[in-house]
Amino acid sequence: MLFHIHMVVRQPSDLADDEFETLKAAEKNRAQDLMRAGKWRHLWRIAGKYENFSVLDVRDPDELNDIVRSLPLFPYMSFQITALCRHPSSVRDDDT
Amino acid sequence: MLFHIHMVVRQPSDLADDEFETLKAAEKNRAQDLMRAGKWRHLWRIAGKYENFSVLDVRDPDELNDIVRSLPLFPYMSFQITALCRHPSSVRDDDT
Amino acid sequence: MLFHIHMVVRQPSDLADDEFETLKAAEKNRAQDLMRAGKWRHLWRIAGKYENFSVLDVRDPDELNDIVRSLPLFPYMSFQITALCRHPSSVRDDDT
Amino acid sequence: MLFHIHMVVRQPSDLADDEFETLKAAEKNRAQDLMRAGKWRHLWRIAGKYENFSVLDVRDPDELNDIVRSLPLFPYMSFQITALCRHPSSVRDDDT
Amino acid sequence: MLFHIHMVVRQPSDLADDEFETLKAAEKNRAQDLMRAGKWRHLWRIAGKYENFSVLDVRDPDELNDIVRSLPLFPYMSFQITALCRHPSSVRDDDT
Amino acid sequence: MLFHIHMVVRQPSDLADDEFETLKAAEKNRAQDLMRAGKWRHLWRIAGKYENFSVLDVRDPDELNDIVRSLPLFPYMSFQITALCRHPSSVRDDDT
Amino acid sequence: MLFHIHMVVRQPSDLADDEFETLKAAEKNRAQDLMRAGKWRHLWRIAGKYENFSVLDVRDPDELNDIVRSLPLFPYMSFQITALCRHPSSVRDDDT
Amino acid sequence: MLFHIHMVVRQPSDLADDEFETLKAAEKNRAQDLMRAGKWRHLWRIAGKYENFSVLDVRDPDELNDIVRSLPLFPYMSFQITALCRHPSSVRDDDT
Amino acid sequence: MLFHIHMVVRQPSDLADDEFETLKAAEKNRAQDLMRAGKWRHLWRIAGKYENFSVLDVRDPDELNDIVRSLPLFPYMSFQITALCRHPSSVRDDDT
Amino acid sequence: MLFHIHMVVRQPSDLADDEFETLKAAEKNRAQDLMRAGKWRHLWRIAGKYENFSVLDVRDPDELNDIVRSLPLFPYMSFQITALCRHPSSVRDDDT
Repeated sequence: MLFHIHMVVRQPSDLADDEFETLKAAEKNRAQDLMRAGKWRHLWRIAGKYENFSVLDVRDPDELNDIVRSLPLFPYMSFQITALCRHPSSVRDDDT
Repeated sequence: MLFHIHMVVRQPSDLADDEFETLKAAEKNRAQDLMRAGKWRHLWRIAGKYENFSVLDVRDPDELNDIVRSLPLFPYMSFQITALCRHPSSVRDDDT
Repeated sequence: MLFHIHMVVRQPSDLADDEFETLKAAEKNRAQDLMRAGKWRHLWRIAGKYENFSVLDVRDPDELNDIVRSLPLFPYMSFQITALCRHPSSVRDDDT
Repeated sequence: MLFHIHMVVRQPSDLADDEFETLKAAEKNRAQDLMRAGKWRHLWRIAGKYENFSVLDVRDPDELNDIVRSLPLFPYMSFQITALCRHPSSVRDDDT
Repeated sequence: MLFHIHMVVRQPSDLADDEFETLKAAEKNRAQDLMRAGKWRHLWRIAGKYENFSVLDVRDPDELNDIVRSLPLFPYMSFQITALCRHPSSVRDDDT
Repeated sequence: MLFHIHMVVRQPSDLADDEFETLKAAEKNRAQDLMRAGKWRHLWRIAGKYENFSVLDVRDPDELNDIVRSLPLFPYMSFQITALCRHPSSVRDDDT
Repeated sequence: MLFHIHMVVRQPSDLADDEFETLKAAEKNRAQDLMRAGKWRHLWRIAGKYENFSVLDVRDPDELNDIVRSLPLFPYMSFQITALCRHPSSVRDDDT
Repeated sequence: MLFHIHMVVRQPSDLADDEFETLKAAEKNRAQDLMRAGKWRHLWRIAGKYENFSVLDVRDPDELNDIVRSLPLFPYMSFQITALCRHPSSVRDDDT
Repeated sequence: MLFHIHMVVRQPSDLADDEFETLKAAEKNRAQDLMRAGKWRHLWRIAGKYENFSVLDVRDPDELNDIVRSLPLFPYMSFQITALCRHPSSVRDDDT
Repeated sequence: MLFHIHMVVRQPSDLADDEFETLKAAEKNRAQDLMRAGKWRHLWRIAGKYENFSVLDVRDPDELNDIVRSLPLFPYMSFQITALCRHPSSVRDDDT
């Protein structure tokens, strides 16, 4: 089932730059693993912001919770989470 | 280029039911034409609400504006529009 | 899976009183059917308001969507919907 | 009497990780004691967030106040508290 | 037990003036009955607004709910309700 | 004349615990002096929060200002202040 | 004593134009009477809006309430009211 | 031309008390110079808050900008700025 | 002097379509007259919305007020108005 | 294509003054390079605030994103970004 997530990264002012770069590299690896596994279906950057819109395909809210908490940048992000369902007007196979 | 749109339909209280049904049918036709033309890339209903998240693929903001204003339900919808760009972590070809 | 819903009824000013009473009676019947079927797990009135907190147990967001839209008062309610998951500190069997 | 509480944990940036883990373990113990005593009736995690929805069954607002302030994470949480009452449509015995 | 209520009256535009005056007179009677019965402990008008701050002394949230819904102006008011408890610094007997 | 104040204490994260306890004890003394002097007419704790609703009886806004600024916790509190007047429906002598 | 009021006029859509003009003329007369009586100390229009900032000089909140409710446009205005006091840095005699 | 400014001072937690007192004294001097020069037309403290409402009389927005940025407390204040114009109902000469 | 205005048109539900078209045509004429006179310096439509960002070049806030109120759609628009000044980093002659 | 950006600089409290001045000088240089290149079409300071309204002319949202992230003050700014399109009432050649 699909969940839409608006992720906002808050750049921590008391985190050393290299430590933040390390976290971002780990985040990228984790995100790409989840994309290749089909769990993270879409990922778009919001132009000009440290934010993204994502669509996750999970078994249930527990898996959604596990994935979000496994992200290396989790402590520095806020999340707005919305359950999606099939739109009766969609003609695309991959909108489900 | 991609724009993310959060569409909210406000059901008009002074619009007769059959007139609203006619508008919804026209909206569905128009949306499906735009999906088949590759302009309306994604369309997901927000569970339990008369709202959707959409991703449009347009030439420029003028085309975005023309498409949104061409929707039969335009006078009864509000729109939150966000410009998207390629996320450096995405591994999907269709996230651009 | 569980979803928490905050439901707010907007009393329509242009709806005749007896028509509204008819809708409320239908709403009560529908809610009780769903409670007996185990779909509507909890229902609490917010003291002093025409609002409630509910917990629904559904198969997926599509079923959640179908249930919410089937409510007779649907056109006169707004919904804030939140996906729940098991809390690691809960000791209750029915919190899942 | 029942109160619905939306609890949000703010992770303190200037609190050492092990000190926070100690507080979380104490919080879990306290919460489970209150659940076993029938005071903390429900506890659901909000998927993907460090937040929960809870239902407490207390004698009066003073006891509610005492319980909330006794939580080890109290200084790092915010609370939205709502008094509940019996919903005339509920068929469940435990919704009171 | 005490609840603090911020009441806001929305003057209905489609209600005839004399009907509204009748409702206001009924509201005054009902409020004064509740004050004399010790249920409505305090009532202050917010200067320059059609709003008041009230303190109600009720048995439980169900009684609070019954009282609020019994007000003749109930359909035209919104309520912000807050549970109060004894403040450890208060020296007044009637603040409980 | 009466003013209603919603006081919210922000617990300072960079203030040592014992220093905060000293301030709270001083605040309690100051509040009780003002209550005994008839200036601080009501003081209720908001259940589960570090907030209170208060009613002050002052000569004019200048005295209100002097009292609020004299509170030991003033630098750590925010205030929402509302001028009250006699409600025509009140039957209580002490609501003026 | 001085109160600062931000007044916002909501143009009623179901009020005939000539009736509104009559109300505005009455409002102007009433405002000018209060200005000449020294009660309405300042009145500035907010550029480009049907709003004003005003300063009233009244005996107490009850008089403030009486004045505001006596305005012919009262049913069509909202008010944000703030108690003022002497600023220790002011050198103007008329800022009190 | 007149601008209405709502100034809010944020007391900096990491600023030493004596340094803040020095800034406040400088702010008072600067404000009084501007008042005597006729640039700062009105200054009222909001009762019980570290905020004020001011009216400035400037040549143009550039001068407004220069004055506001010249205030010693500028880095610790936020400003809500509103352009004023003559109200057709005002009878006061100094409301322009 | 320059003011930035965010204009939002609220489509009136009780206004006949042809009457609204007549108003829009009059609005266009008035806007173009003001643009040719150099008063309305910039006008951009916000893509997908019945809103625009404008920059007006006026003598003072009174002229700004006169212009805004002269717009045929004035009763159906809301305005967010911001005074602009020369930015020290701008290299463009027409940004003043 | 044009994007309207509302930029707000948050003055970092833990950044040394000279380091901030260095960043501001770099920001000015970068902004002026972009203005000379025709990418940063307009830049106005909001009077009395550390904020500006800007209009950027970019190839697509990716370029917008690259430009915004290249600003030396990027970590200390927030951005509200709006896609613009040609307004049918504009008579100016440079509003496109």
